[in-house]
Order: sequence, then structure tokens, then C-alpha cells
Amino acid sequence: MQALIIAPISGIISILAALYLFSNLVKQEKGTEKMIEIADAIREGSNAYLKRQNQTLAVFVLIMAVLLWILLSFQVAVAYVLGAVCTALASFLGMAAAVRANVITANAARGSLDDAFKVAFYGGAIMGLSIVGMALLAISTLYFIFGPEGLDIILGFSFGASALALFAKAGGGIFTKTADIGADLVGKVELGIPEDDPRNPAVIADNVGDNVGDVAGTGADLIDSYIACVVASMILGRTLGIDFIILPLLIGAIGIFASLIGTFFVRTKNQDPGAALNNGTYLTCFFFAILAFLLINYLGLEDQGFKIFLATISGLIAGVIIGITTDYFTSIDKAPVLKIAEASKTGAAMNILSGFSYGLMSILPPIIGVCAAILISFNLVGVYGVSISAVGMLSIVGMIISTDAYGPIVDNAKGIAEQSGLGEEVVKIADKLDAAGNTAKAITKGFAIGAAALTVLSIFAAYSELVDIKSLNLMKSDVMVGLFIGAMAPPFLSALLILGVQKNAARMIEEVRRQFREIPGLMEGKAKPDYARCVDIATKGALKELVLPGFLSIAFPLAVGFLLGKYALGGFLGGSIVSGIVFALFMSNAGGAWDNAKKYIEDGNLGGKGSKAHIAAVIGDTVGDPFKDTAGPTINTLITVMSLVATVFAPLIVKYSLFG
Amino acid sequence: MQALIIAPISGIISILAALYLFSNLVKQEKGTEKMIEIADAIREGSNAYLKRQNQTLAVFVLIMAVLLWILLSFQVAVAYVLGAVCTALASFLGMAAAVRANVITANAARGSLDDAFKVAFYGGAIMGLSIVGMALLAISTLYFIFGPEGLDIILGFSFGASALALFAKAGGGIFTKTADIGADLVGKVELGIPEDDPRNPAVIADNVGDNVGDVAGTGADLIDSYIACVVASMILGRTLGIDFIILPLLIGAIGIFASLIGTFFVRTKNQDPGAALNNGTYLTCFFFAILAFLLINYLGLEDQGFKIFLATISGLIAGVIIGITTDYFTSIDKAPVLKIAEASKTGAAMNILSGFSYGLMSILPPIIGVCAAILISFNLVGVYGVSISAVGMLSIVGMIISTDAYGPIVDNAKGIAEQSGLGEEVVKIADKLDAAGNTAKAITKGFAIGAAALTVLSIFAAYSELVDIKSLNLMKSDVMVGLFIGAMAPPFLSALLILGVQKNAARMIEEVRRQFREIPGLMEGKAKPDYARCVDIATKGALKELVLPGFLSIAFPLAVGFLLGKYALGGFLGGSIVSGIVFALFMSNAGGAWDNAKKYIEDGNLGGKGSKAHIAAVIGDTVGDPFKDTAGPTINTLITVMSLVATVFAPLIVKYSLFG
Repeated sequence: MQALIIAPISGIISILAALYLFSNLVKQEKGTEKMIEIADAIREGSNAYLKRQNQTLAVFVLIMAVLLWILLSFQVAVAYVLGAVCTALASFLGMAAAVRANVITANAARGSLDDAFKVAFYGGAIMGLSIVGMALLAISTLYFIFGPEGLDIILGFSFGASALALFAKAGGGIFTKTADIGADLVGKVELGIPEDDPRNPAVIADNVGDNVGDVAGTGADLIDSYIACVVASMILGRTLGIDFIILPLLIGAIGIFASLIGTFFVRTKNQDPGAALNNGTYLTCFFFAILAFLLINYLGLEDQGFKIFLATISGLIAGVIIGITTDYFTSIDKAPVLKIAEASKTGAAMNILSGFSYGLMSILPPIIGVCAAILISFNLVGVYGVSISAVGMLSIVGMIISTDAYGPIVDNAKGIAEQSGLGEEVVKIADKLDAAGNTAKAITKGFAIGAAALTVLSIFAAYSELVDIKSLNLMKSDVMVGLFIGAMAPPFLSALLILGVQKNAARMIEEVRRQFREIPGLMEGKAKPDYARCVDIATKGALKELVLPGFLSIAFPLAVGFLLGKYALGGFLGGSIVSGIVFALFMSNAGGAWDNAKKYIEDGNLGGKGSKAHIAAVIGDTVGDPFKDTAGPTINTLITVMSLVATVFAPLIVKYSLFG
Repeated sequence: MQALIIAPISGIISILAALYLFSNLVKQEKGTEKMIEIADAIREGSNAYLKRQNQTLAVFVLIMAVLLWILLSFQVAVAYVLGAVCTALASFLGMAAAVRANVITANAARGSLDDAFKVAFYGGAIMGLSIVGMALLAISTLYFIFGPEGLDIILGFSFGASALALFAKAGGGIFTKTADIGADLVGKVELGIPEDDPRNPAVIADNVGDNVGDVAGTGADLIDSYIACVVASMILGRTLGIDFIILPLLIGAIGIFASLIGTFFVRTKNQDPGAALNNGTYLTCFFFAILAFLLINYLGLEDQGFKIFLATISGLIAGVIIGITTDYFTSIDKAPVLKIAEASKTGAAMNILSGFSYGLMSILPPIIGVCAAILISFNLVGVYGVSISAVGMLSIVGMIISTDAYGPIVDNAKGIAEQSGLGEEVVKIADKLDAAGNTAKAITKGFAIGAAALTVLSIFAAYSELVDIKSLNLMKSDVMVGLFIGAMAPPFLSALLILGVQKNAARMIEEVRRQFREIPGLMEGKAKPDYARCVDIATKGALKELVLPGFLSIAFPLAVGFLLGKYALGGFLGGSIVSGIVFALFMSNAGGAWDNAKKYIEDGNLGGKGSKAHIAAVIGDTVGDPFKDTAGPTINTLITVMSLVATVFAPLIVKYSLFG
């Protein structure tokens, strides 16, 4: 029990490290006036969006908090608000770092690749370290205050974090793709001007989107899984003893130390930056495994130690394997992407059909990976083992978020380099950094989805324990009906998100066309476009379109629970997990493959830019945009939120179900 | 028990009625020499494909039969072969009628719409009546021979029927879309010649495809569900008593009578042919309900009578409701299709994204319908009730198949009318008949998917009973892992099918382009294209591409069962049912919506033919083709086959599972 003190300490260390990196970052050179001007526009747009998003969400969070207060308890309501604020703060901090690191990276790229890489990576690490530090500090503090009896309060904290993450991910995802599609379809396709061209009115909105969608959104997504799986393990550990309750927090703490050490080893030294990022991840895993072994040995854990260690590691290894195999389906030099590119020669429909198919096929390896982790960890230590394997997988989330946030920073840096005319050499370096971000993304995505699967299974188990379900028999009609409705929920809600992007992008396209038509001299570069108006359209649309899916993600499980009872709700969660994972993997990977098929052609293959194949591939890429950056990653958070809703409201559902 | 004699008798009456209609059909006028020439080409192509398909499948069926003989028993092996032969024969007969009715319909359309409609509908009814008659005759004969102890033999029969149906549906589906896409992309899009233009080398293959895919394939798909749900109900009825075992057969018999009466009432008399078809279906439902009430009253069924009647009717009503609500998402005058058409104005990507989204949203009403039928029938009579509601839904399958086969017949008739230059007036009538086919399709599709869901649930229940699973607890790791793998199977196998179409269509496109390039005078209409070569490409490709998905659909459940045991296999079936229904509905409806969005634009809206919106909508339609006519409908059969594999091999899986 005394060992638990390392949890908040590691959280504080992590936050301090992030603050140190931040203070280091802002001291550095930002480059030319033009660069600063562009970076300021991006920063202002990002802040404006986040401010408006948080204002909108504050209303929602408060309503929900009042409901929780009335229906459950004051403490749960406060914990819920705390969780939401924590996630909002972390994504704000991460974005604050990213919108500063982008221009500094661009400026450093005028020197060398090594320097630029360092800025971008440590820029991302600010988010990774601060967010994981805050999460662990908050959970362990809550535990110190309320003890094992207060786990439902910590559950409220997790619910708050996830609800905010869902909105951040969905809203950010709609924003970023609205801007991206709007900029591309009019700029690149209709007018033939390059990507990131300053004449394009949607170009700033596009860069803002990278920050609000990929930095703030993805960070929130990962951290909500992290919190949820730690809490679920703690609940499941309750029947096993105090050591098992605090173990997830301790694993979290050593995960932070492993991530901190790992970040020191991320160095390029003229080597491929993609390899540097991956090496960092692998090394972190390695350090984590050693520390976990020592920790579990020290705790003893009633002779279960070695089994629990294996369960922890099985999650970690599954995460890496999922990442690597998933990578195959989205890599620019592997068969699937090459075949999608090849299919583009016979037109857009063939490109779509083949990308769609490879996306569906890509779900096989990760599902086998998740299943292996489930079977191993369950058979070693029961359902607690599954949750511990999720904790193992997510323990290195600090490193994972750092690597992930690197992506949008270098993407932005590339945009700034192009818009401020830094010359071919600098753009080339930025391009190289950007490509590395895409490679690393595959592994982090594998982690995120695999972790979501195991996390939601843990919450599912925690739910069953809380509502006292001994057996969730699939041969009963209520469980089966729940399973059907649960399986329907993720695709249905994805559809709403994609439709949101499609509708909002249509508005953006009209606006960009209008500006080119009505602003004289814009095409010739003599007049400036109205960037702010595009940012405004993306913002308003994103906030409008996220309301319905956000509401339904809470209404669905409550409706099933209160109408059909706790068994149906259990079936619902089971259905939503499997269908959610299938759709999340399919959409993320199909989108990634389409993106790279287009890049492959743009690299001069199959006729290169402007060829028939290229036009087809651009259509595929556009279809894939909301798949991979809006709906796909939102599903992770969606299924987490739905299972947390079920778990938080479990005591009421048991009492007041209509037909249950 | 004596009442059972009406089952084979009704089967024989149904077959005799079909033969009578056939003899009536072939007596009628076929029209001009040109028409006969085209019809002959279509017939020869269709026969050639079916012959080659059946030759290929014969090998597979024999290997499987030997395996079943060695592993299970000689009787099961024979029943398996019988089931396969029965389905092959029925789809052969249906196609034989369809490839004759098409030209006669075209010729009758030179007279009046009423006459042409009658030919087409009764042409379709030949298939509907013969197939359902044969199925019921075979099952009841097997039951007379082997009695209640021989239900595993009847299960073998069902497995044979489903295995053949899967290959027929998958192979036919790949064939038809290979030809359709090949003909459209080169003919309509690249060269701008009209649909069904005789200069297009793939036009005969396209017409052949309608027959081998939509007639033979869909008929096989529906009949395999019918047989499977009857058998599953009989197995589930075993614990309840002899009356409950024979009830499904008796319901089948009165379904035949209701269908026979219903077909008499299908008349146009200057009214809308679509309404005539739907009225026929509704009337059949009505007659069925009355007969079912009388039958169940007569049997008594230990005071369960009224409850069982309600369960039967709940399935029927769910089928109709599913059809009607699904119709909303694919109708040319409803919001989803109009919005997809609207989105086409901003390009192909937007058309795809919006069709994709509405397709995903369309799964909600049918799933609610299926869930309602499950809850009602389960709570009335337990798991037997669910299977009886499936039997209720499928009882009128004779009428459903008749209505469904009408579609490709009038589609072909339209093609023949256009290719042989029968003039605008005749083509207009054919067009009207064709549009009615599309409307009716929505309802039959609703039936097919809803019925598949309930059928597979019944087999699932029968499986659980056979392997003696008392509870399939979703909180056990093996059940959950099974659920994951099961949920992955339908999308994975759909991907293989879509990829098959895409690859084969690419070959077809090359060939059509080659013929236009190398045959001098083809474009000017002075030379004849090489139709046979296109038919050959479609045939070879279809047979090649169906091997892997066909094999995996049997290998997946066996691998899960023999590796992970009977509980994991139970979870697998549960996962495959829910994910299968989600994907089947999504793909069928998205495809239908894209098709009608294109038609809406072609009707002169949003710029009409040749406009930017039209080009985008054609891409969407092409993407939708394999969704709605290959992968979507194959999933129905796929999940039936997988659950039958599990059930047939159940005794072995219980004995020889590795980790189970």
C-alpha cells in the first residue's frame, strides 16, 4: 500500500517533465515574419475552435453533472466534472505545445533534419507526458481520498474523461475533414493549385484541423481508454484484495518511467526518423517489461505474480503485433496499397472497391491479436487478467501519444514551410519528417484500437460484476436482442459522423468556390483570401454535427438498459464491442490505404499527378478521410463511453428497468 | 401425424403447377428473328455458365460427401448430395423458365403491358413454385423414411442445399457484376453508347448475369433459408413432442397453398405493375394467416396453439415491416436517395460518403423489426417460437421467389427490346415493368435478410441443443473470442467477394476495350463483337474467385470448433449472425440507394445524363453493384452455411476439440 505513493509522484514528475520541455520549446527561434504570421493564424484558429468547443461542452457537462448528482451522488457528479476538465485541460496543453512546435520545427528544418525532428518529437512529448501524468495523479489522488469503497466515484471521473474525449474526437474529426476535403476538392482537384497553397481560403482551416482533430482529439481518445482500463481493473481487483486494486496504478507509474526513459532514446542522427520513432516505442516496451517484472516480484501478489506479469506483457505484445500487421495493409510499399493504386487505372469505382475490400480484410490480424491476448490473460488470471493486459498495453501511452502528436506537428510544419516559401530543400526535409509520422501512426493506431477492445472488455466485466450478472447467456432472447442492437450502434453512429463531414464539407466547398469567384486577384496571388470565414464554417458545422451522435451514444445504452434490463444491456455492450472494433479497424485502415495509394501515384507512378489513375485515387483518398480521421477513431471512444454509461448507471438500471 | 401427408402432397401440387406454367410458357410467340437470336445467345451463355458451375461444384460436393460419410454416416452424406442436387435442379429449372420468359415478355410488350406483365410474373412463378415444392417434398419424404430420429440426416440435406446455394449466389453474383461493370464502364462511361447497346461486347454477358446471378442465385439463397429454418424448427420441436416436429412442415404446406392462391390475384389491369406484385404478396400473407389459424386450431398443440400462431404471424409481419422500412432508404422519391443525388453535385467522393452513410443508417429499422420478432416469439413459446416465427416469415417463400424472379426477366426483356430495335413504345413498357421489379425487390430483400437472421438464430439454437450447451456465457473468454472471430468472418468474406468482382471486372474492361480497339467497324455497328469471349471471361473469373470464400466459409467454423471448442463455436455463430445481418443490410441498401440516385439523375434531374453529378452518381452505382448483388445477398447464405457446418459437425466437435 505504501508503494502506491509512487503513482502520484510519477504523475507529478511526468507533468514537470512536460513543463520543462514546454519552457524549452518556447525559447526557440520561430523563423521569418511570414512564418510567424501563418503560425499565428493557425494558433488563433485552433484556440478559437477549442474555446467554442469547450463552451458548448461545458453546458453538456453541467447538465450531465446535475443529472448524476440527482440520480447517483454529489461525489460522482464532481468526479465526472473533474474528469471532463482534466481531459479538456490536457488536450488544451497538448495543442498549445503543438501550435508552437509546428513553426519552430519548420524553422529548424532550415538547419537540419535532426534538429527539426527533435523539436517536433519533444513538442509531441509535451502532450504525451502531461496528459498521462495528470490522469494518474488524479486517479491516485481520488483513491487516496475515497479508498476502495469509492471506486464508483473514480468511475464517474472516467466517465467524465470519456464523454469529453468523445466530443473532442468527434468534433475535431469533423472539423479537420471538413477543412481538408474542402481545401483539396476545390484547390487541388478543381483549380489544380498545390496542397497548402496560401491562395486557398481553406488552407488555414486545414492546418487548424490537424491540431484540433489529430492532436487534441487523438490525445483525448487514448487517455480516456487509459483511465477507463485502470478504473475497470481496480473494480475487478476488488474481489482479489487490496494489492490487486492498486496494481493498475503502480503499472501506470512504471509505464510513465519507461516512457520518460524511452523519450531520451529517440534520436535520428541521420537515420530514418520513422525508425527513430519506432525504436523509441520498442525501447519503452522493453524498459516497461523489466520494470513490471521487478514491481510484480516485489509485490508478490499471492503467488499469482508471474501469471499477472505474463498477462501484462501479453497485452503489450499484442499491441505491437497489431500495429505491425496493420501496418501491412496501409504501407505504401506493400501489396494492398499497390493493388489499390493499380485498380485506380480502371477508375474511381475500382479504387473504392479495392480499398474497401482491403480495409475489411485488414481486420483479421488485429482481431486474432486481441483474441490471443484475451485467451492468454483470461486463462492465466481470469477476467482480472484481461483488464491487466489492457493496462499493460496502455501503460506506455505516454510514449504512444508523444509519437502520435509528432504527426500533426510535422504536417503543420510542412504546411508552414510551403506557404512561406522556404524553398525546396526545407520542404523536402519537412516531407521526410511527415512521411515518418504516417508510418508511426500505424503502430499507434494498432495500440489505440487493440487497447480500446481490451479496455471495453474490462469495463464490460466490471459492469457485469456491479449488476451482479453471473452468466450472460447468449441463448436468452434479451441478451441476443441486446447483442443485435449493440452491433448496430457503432455503424449507425459512424454514419452520422460521416454524414456530418459530408454535409459540412459541402458547405466549405461552396465557400471556397465563392471566394475564388468573388475576390478579385485571389487566383493570381494579388489578394488575400478570407481564412477566418472558412475556420468559422468548419467550427460551427463540427459543433452542430456532433450533437446527435454524442447524445445517442449516451441514450442508446440507457434506453436498452431501462427498457429491456441488465441482461439486454450486457448483450448490448458485447455487440457494440465486437462491431465497434470491426468498424474501427476497417475504417481506419481503408482510409490509410487510400491515402497512401494516392501518395504512391503522386510519387510519379502509374502516370503520376494529373493522370486518370491520380484523379481516381484522389476520390478514394477523399472518401477515406472521414473514415480514418473522423468515424474510425471516434468509435474507440464511443464504445468506451457506452460501456461507462452502462457501468455508471448500473445501480439505477438494476432497480428501474421496465421489462428487465 | 396423418395430417403430415399434406406436406408432400402440397409439394407435388406446387411442382405440377410450375410444370403447367412452363408448358404454357413455351407455347407462346417469341417474336422476330433478331429477338430470337439475342435470346438464344443469352440462353446459351446462361446454360454454359450453369453447366460449368455445376461441374466445378460437383467435385466439391463429392469431396464433402466422402468426408461426411467417413466422419459421420452414409445417410448424412447421401442427404447432403440430395440437398445439393435439389438446389441445383431448382435453380436450373428457374433459369430455364427465365431465359425463355424474357423474350416472350419482350414480344408480349409489343401488344400490351398487361400481357407482358403476365408472362414475366408467371415466368418467375415457375421458379418460385417448383423450388419450394421440391424442398418440401424432399424434407417430408426424408422425414417419412427416417422419422424423428433421422433429423440429423435432414440436417445433412439442408447443409447440401445451403452449400450449393452459397456457391450459386457467390459465383452468380461475381459473374453478373463482372459483366455489368465491364459493360457499363467502357460502354456507357468511356464511349458514351447506351445501356444494352448490341455493339457492346459485354452486353450478352450482362444479360446472362441477370439470369445466373439474380434468378438462379437469389432463388437458391431463399430456398436454403427456407429448408434450414424448417429443419432447425423440427430439431427444436423434438423436446416438445411429435406435433411440434411436424408443425413446420405443415406450415410450409399451407404456405404453398397461400402462394398458389396469391399468384392468381396478381393482375395489372392498367394499374401499376409494382402495386400488383406487392398486392400479391400482401394477399398471400393474408391467406396464409387464415390457413395458419385454422391449421393450428385443428392441431391443438397442447394449449400452446394461439401463442404459436402469434409467433408465426410475428415473423410474417416483421418481414413485411422490414421490407417497407428498408424501402424508404432505397426509393427514388425518398430523402436518402435524393440527398445522395444532391451530394453527387460536389463529386464522386461525396456521393460515396453519403450513400455509405445512409446504407449504414438503414440497418436500424430492420434490426428493430428482427428484435421485436425475437422478443415476441421467444417470450410466447421460447426458442421454438423464434424458429417458428422464421418459418412463418419464410412460409410464403414461393410467392417471394416468384416476385423476385420477375425482376431479372423484365430486365432481360428490356435488354432484348432495345437490342432488337422494337421501338420506343415497347421499350417504354419494358421500362415500366423493370421499375416495378426494383420496387418489389425491396420487400423481397427485407424478407430474405430478416428470414436469414431468424433462421440462423434457429440453427444456432439447434446447435446449442445438439452440443448440449446449457448456457453460452458471454463473460467467458472462449465465448467472447468466438464472438470476435465470428463478427470478423462476414466482412472478411465479403471483402474477398468484392475483390473478386473488382479483379474480374478489370479483366472484362480490358477485353471490351480490346475488342473496340481491334475489331474494325465495331463502333460503327458494321461488325459484330465477340460476345462469347466476354461470357467466358465472366465465367472463368467467377468460378475462380468463389473458391477461397467458399472454402473459408466452411473452414472458419470448423477451425474455431476443433481448436477452441463448442462454446467458442457458439460465440462464433452469435458474432457471425449479428455482424452478418449488419453487413448484409448495409451493403444491399447502400447499393440500392446508389443505383436509384443515378436513376434519379438520369431522369433529367440535377443536370441529367452527362452532367458532373451524373458522372459522380455512375461511380457510386458501380461501387454499389457488388455490394447489393454480390456480397450483400451472399452474406445471408454465408451465415446459414456457417451455422449448418457447426450443427452438422457438432457431434465431432464435442469429441475432438483441442482446447475446448
